[in-house]
Amino acid sequence: MNFKTLLENKELQPYLLKARYGVEREGQRVTLAGDLVDTLHPTTLGNRKYHPYIQTDFAETQLELITPVAQSISELFDFLTAIHEVAYRSMNPEEMIWPLSMPPMLPEKEEDILIAQLDNFEDVLYRRYLAKSYGRRKQMVSGIHYNFEFSDELLQKMFALQSEIKEYTAFKTAVYLKVTRNYLHYSWLVTYLFGATPVSEARYFEGDERPNEPVRSIRNSSHGYKNHPDVKVSYESLEQYIVDLERMVNEGKLSEEKEFYSVVRFRGGKKMADLAEAGIRYIELRNLDLNPFAPCGISEEQAEFLHLFLLFLLWKEEEAPAHIWVTDGERKNEEVALEHPLQATRYQEEALETLIALQAFIEEQGLRVSDGLMGTYIEMVKTPAETVAGKLYTQSQKTSQKEVATKIALENHARAWAKPYQLAGFTQMELSTQIFMFDAIQKGIQVEVLDDRDQFLKLSVGNHVEYVKNANMTSKDSYIVPLLMANKTVTKKVLDQAGFRVPKGREFSSLEEAVTAYPEFAGQGIVVKPKSTNYGIGISIFKEGASLEDYQAALRVAFEADEDVLVEEFFSGTEYRFFVIDGKVKGILLRVPANVKGDGERTIEALVAEKNRDPLRGTNHRSPLEKIQLGDLEKIALKSQGYDITDVPAKDEIVYLRDNSNISSGGDSIEVTEMFNEDYKEVAVKAVKALGAVICGIDLIIPDHTIPASEKDAYGIIEGNFNPAMMMHIYPHKGIGPRLTMDVLELLFPEMF
Amino acid sequence: MNFKTLLENKELQPYLLKARYGVEREGQRVTLAGDLVDTLHPTTLGNRKYHPYIQTDFAETQLELITPVAQSISELFDFLTAIHEVAYRSMNPEEMIWPLSMPPMLPEKEEDILIAQLDNFEDVLYRRYLAKSYGRRKQMVSGIHYNFEFSDELLQKMFALQSEIKEYTAFKTAVYLKVTRNYLHYSWLVTYLFGATPVSEARYFEGDERPNEPVRSIRNSSHGYKNHPDVKVSYESLEQYIVDLERMVNEGKLSEEKEFYSVVRFRGGKKMADLAEAGIRYIELRNLDLNPFAPCGISEEQAEFLHLFLLFLLWKEEEAPAHIWVTDGERKNEEVALEHPLQATRYQEEALETLIALQAFIEEQGLRVSDGLMGTYIEMVKTPAETVAGKLYTQSQKTSQKEVATKIALENHARAWAKPYQLAGFTQMELSTQIFMFDAIQKGIQVEVLDDRDQFLKLSVGNHVEYVKNANMTSKDSYIVPLLMANKTVTKKVLDQAGFRVPKGREFSSLEEAVTAYPEFAGQGIVVKPKSTNYGIGISIFKEGASLEDYQAALRVAFEADEDVLVEEFFSGTEYRFFVIDGKVKGILLRVPANVKGDGERTIEALVAEKNRDPLRGTNHRSPLEKIQLGDLEKIALKSQGYDITDVPAKDEIVYLRDNSNISSGGDSIEVTEMFNEDYKEVAVKAVKALGAVICGIDLIIPDHTIPASEKDAYGIIEGNFNPAMMMHIYPHKGIGPRLTMDVLELLFPEMF
Repeated sequence: MNFKTLLENKELQPYLLKARYGVEREGQRVTLAGDLVDTLHPTTLGNRKYHPYIQTDFAETQLELITPVAQSISELFDFLTAIHEVAYRSMNPEEMIWPLSMPPMLPEKEEDILIAQLDNFEDVLYRRYLAKSYGRRKQMVSGIHYNFEFSDELLQKMFALQSEIKEYTAFKTAVYLKVTRNYLHYSWLVTYLFGATPVSEARYFEGDERPNEPVRSIRNSSHGYKNHPDVKVSYESLEQYIVDLERMVNEGKLSEEKEFYSVVRFRGGKKMADLAEAGIRYIELRNLDLNPFAPCGISEEQAEFLHLFLLFLLWKEEEAPAHIWVTDGERKNEEVALEHPLQATRYQEEALETLIALQAFIEEQGLRVSDGLMGTYIEMVKTPAETVAGKLYTQSQKTSQKEVATKIALENHARAWAKPYQLAGFTQMELSTQIFMFDAIQKGIQVEVLDDRDQFLKLSVGNHVEYVKNANMTSKDSYIVPLLMANKTVTKKVLDQAGFRVPKGREFSSLEEAVTAYPEFAGQGIVVKPKSTNYGIGISIFKEGASLEDYQAALRVAFEADEDVLVEEFFSGTEYRFFVIDGKVKGILLRVPANVKGDGERTIEALVAEKNRDPLRGTNHRSPLEKIQLGDLEKIALKSQGYDITDVPAKDEIVYLRDNSNISSGGDSIEVTEMFNEDYKEVAVKAVKALGAVICGIDLIIPDHTIPASEKDAYGIIEGNFNPAMMMHIYPHKGIGPRLTMDVLELLFPEMF
Repeated sequence: MNFKTLLENKELQPYLLKARYGVEREGQRVTLAGDLVDTLHPTTLGNRKYHPYIQTDFAETQLELITPVAQSISELFDFLTAIHEVAYRSMNPEEMIWPLSMPPMLPEKEEDILIAQLDNFEDVLYRRYLAKSYGRRKQMVSGIHYNFEFSDELLQKMFALQSEIKEYTAFKTAVYLKVTRNYLHYSWLVTYLFGATPVSEARYFEGDERPNEPVRSIRNSSHGYKNHPDVKVSYESLEQYIVDLERMVNEGKLSEEKEFYSVVRFRGGKKMADLAEAGIRYIELRNLDLNPFAPCGISEEQAEFLHLFLLFLLWKEEEAPAHIWVTDGERKNEEVALEHPLQATRYQEEALETLIALQAFIEEQGLRVSDGLMGTYIEMVKTPAETVAGKLYTQSQKTSQKEVATKIALENHARAWAKPYQLAGFTQMELSTQIFMFDAIQKGIQVEVLDDRDQFLKLSVGNHVEYVKNANMTSKDSYIVPLLMANKTVTKKVLDQAGFRVPKGREFSSLEEAVTAYPEFAGQGIVVKPKSTNYGIGISIFKEGASLEDYQAALRVAFEADEDVLVEEFFSGTEYRFFVIDGKVKGILLRVPANVKGDGERTIEALVAEKNRDPLRGTNHRSPLEKIQLGDLEKIALKSQGYDITDVPAKDEIVYLRDNSNISSGGDSIEVTEMFNEDYKEVAVKAVKALGAVICGIDLIIPDHTIPASEKDAYGIIEGNFNPAMMMHIYPHKGIGPRLTMDVLELLFPEMF
């Protein structure tokens, strides 16, 4: 099969860079001092029996982070970054992830390396076998597995353009076999560029196993964690590969197929046995050391380079029969792996030629790649100090490899904890969705972003699928309920019929009609508001009643915003937001207008600046709270109290900078659930039930929460919210917020709790 | 208690005209010739055991139409009109409702008058007793019962303004007792104005019972259907009233309390026995003859007058002790009832004085009433021929009362059937909601309009409540499903993952990115469309592929409508709308662009005019189909085919006047369910299930419906509709439409089917 000619067909051009990717990243948990921990896998991460994202590898301390299949490199890294962040924030805050493939100093006694405490006894038995066969120390090395699949569109079109292979499955297998043989032949180049295990830490090697350090990659050399040398298989054909592997197992050289630690592993059906039938569906590259300079152990540029390199290897002709071609590569790889990291490789010329050929291929095919990508790697070939191993070794020379690694780990740790209300990789989404995804990943619930701009997620556990939008719109609420809550008149009628106190009032569809009704509203506190708009637009409040003139003016404003206008009695009291999920009050929030508390020394301006230093405060809804502004509205509010921003309020005096209590204009959110007795919670729960809602934020106006809710006019209800804000509850200004996102997850997947 | 002074308090002014109303209207079913029918109560109307709106009174032929409690007179008449229309269109189309209180000619044999065939044996027994006690013929008279309750706001405020009566219940009872005594005293005035039974038809009276006809009101005279003369109760106090009634029952003068046919009946608790405890909650006026000139037997003006009159009677002082005051009224009423309808009443002067006093009261209190209302009634007093009885008798003189009544009934019948896709009283609502309400009323499901502009209904049967918007948004669908369908990208992903054929394509958020992807779409049929807008805005279709220039232009148009744009493969074929409810395909619709079929004789213009004569075609979505326009777009479409509106197409030639098949631009809807085999229906059902929807309109593009759905590319799915149009299915241009509204009702209330 001449893949070279085939790939050059111009029709394929739009599909060449389409592929599917996945990454597995291993990493040891260490203390903040960079020492291996002796703690168990974090319990917050749910059960490893099913966890799709966060597992342990050989040892209990050895995290394995697994991305789902991604359709692009950026999607891959969004998920990889997010899973890292979840892992970090699910661990003890005093622990972090070791950024090197070589483990930190290991325990003196081998038996102190704790094998992963898995539920499945077979998994434990397998690890015990490995410990016995290779020693526990050897198993402590970590790496990156890079899963790669050409897009089905590309392969289908290639398949259609040829006639030599009749079956699509066979065609795909041929593609991956060629790529694999070439990759095995050129693996030395990957080891040269990305090798990152120059030096071992104490107690990794026993006796005289240790190579002549520093090298480029201990892990990719014969000193790494490799099969015993008598394990050999052929890559000539899939049939031969399977026959060989089966023979190894039958002869007892391998305990089972998965013990075969090749640089490239074929992936097909669920089990190795399915491979013959299913053919090769994708390949897994296993020769990548953790890149300490990439927070996730592999950089986006590396991932992009590998894709281009694999495509190039499909195109590039093999220059010898399979067994020679592969064996030749293995020999060169061992040489390169054991070279001094700061010395030029003996294959420098061939490396340069190969990369320049790759560059030419990219240009020839018109592939769009990141700026400077190839230049970086060409430069690495010319300057060994620029390789990953070169850089790591150079930096370690100044102090020690441990100190360099610890410093990097601390930086990663600090970044993961800096904004606990965000989820890296998905920061373009709404905060509530970010935290919802965080919780789902932590719990081991599979998450797929169906539409990030629409906050639309698909969650699944086995066959159980749930779709969720905005982290609070789910299958548990019915279609009619949000429509009911969106209509203030309908909401009031329903609550009224159910016996709740709602503001009396009327709906008008003409100014004249509303003006005529003035006598009904004269002399009492009223609210004039558009029927269906939101966010306070067009609303006028007359706490003490309105003159006919003011009433008319307010109507005109309201009718500008909507064709229907409500005039309602005004409820005086404090407004509390009750967040109800599945018949339970999960949080009660008081919102207080933007304010500062005087200390008798600092100006209002300075007090605002200090308050804004809270990491929970940001701008543009990227944080649970907003920074207090000092704009016109704030200055008017101050002026009405006789203040200027340069004034110094007395000690403990509260100065308000806004009339409205919206969090979006710098207000404080205060968690007050404990302050309330059960009676008001019952009112909220029953009102939400009357509305038919399962997830609902309901606002109660309460003049005095110490008076029993059953007293006359103890409370009033104005509306229910079908898309209630969640972050102001979860990360309040004061108090400990309820984890509403986890409550929603429990509602959706009770089987996981 | 001086209600006069109390009512004059200015604070009460805004509440004086607030009240709650209800009407019961009886009426005999007759043939189109005006003869009593011998058919049973229509089976379409469900079971009379529970039907809240449409019952039978004494006889099987005697409909009783009952409104729910209304908060205004216009609401009352909306419902009353609607219930009439439902009754009409649920009856055999060859039957109609007799517009007179006096029945049409009765059967020769009394036993041929069929007592209502009710399920409840006690109800049947009671009717048998009545038949025996009064004779079946007497029971065949019909009337209006007008239920009236002052608003609670008014009574509460009045109660608060006095201190004489300590208990609110007692206060209300005092209010209604006074009103009742005064009403009984002045009932002769109501008989004068509204009496409408001047002449009896054959076989109503037996022997010499018949009065000296014509009179004003046989029904309100002693010749009408009255208690035996020894039945007398006191209206002095509620206690005395109850004692008297109990005595009548104990003495066997009444079989039970409800046999007491007073002009005013007190209503309190559920049973008469509860009245003592509950007090009088509202009153029922029973002395209203059917007004043949009002389609519902009572006009809005009458209802308004009665409200004003009752308010006036609360204000007006009684001028004699209760028993004298009432007895005096009864005597005068008998006199007036038996006067000749064209003669001035002997109480003309008092009548005029009373009405002028009422008018003064209205002015004094500043009550807003309909223009000319009082003038009309004052004129009736002056001119007997203007009274209802006067008019009916005058008209009957020319032919016969039967002919006049038959003509009126035929007009009502014709109006009720004229637009079967509407529901009178609610024509401001969407057609689908009108028909949905029709079906609910027919089935005996209680309907409350929570918001007419929002098409928001509350339905209930016992404790089972369902809210419905747009007749298709219900509690049966989940919140997330319409959100999923609103997002085309998410819809496609979900359908694709479930194995359905959806258009391949990509989503772009910048023009540049989309232009770069051009090679992926070159040379194939594509659609360029904004991600989330609807109704075809910003969509470009290139069935044969687009040049780069056209592609860019289409992108610019699409990006003007949305910030995200989809480019998708084009599916060629015919689009069919599958309407799925609860896992079943209820209808399949083909929409064809506006067109006419030539006859070789008439011009396109004339053919359009003829097609537009179809009563199903209207304008502005007030009909299931829209009239074909002859505007610019139509002329362009014609021109592209080489036509002008004055051209004459050949016989059987189809000329299209639009490119798009929307019903809103004059397209034809064609019901084609029978055309399809089960396989495509299964695809639709499964796709809707994959989307999680219960009520859904899903569009399948099918190049050839005779090819099995399992064939490759036999169909494609573009989107699901979460607010699918219903009327185009129910009343199609061609074919018999499925009653989708009834299917939705069955989904919501299976217990009623």
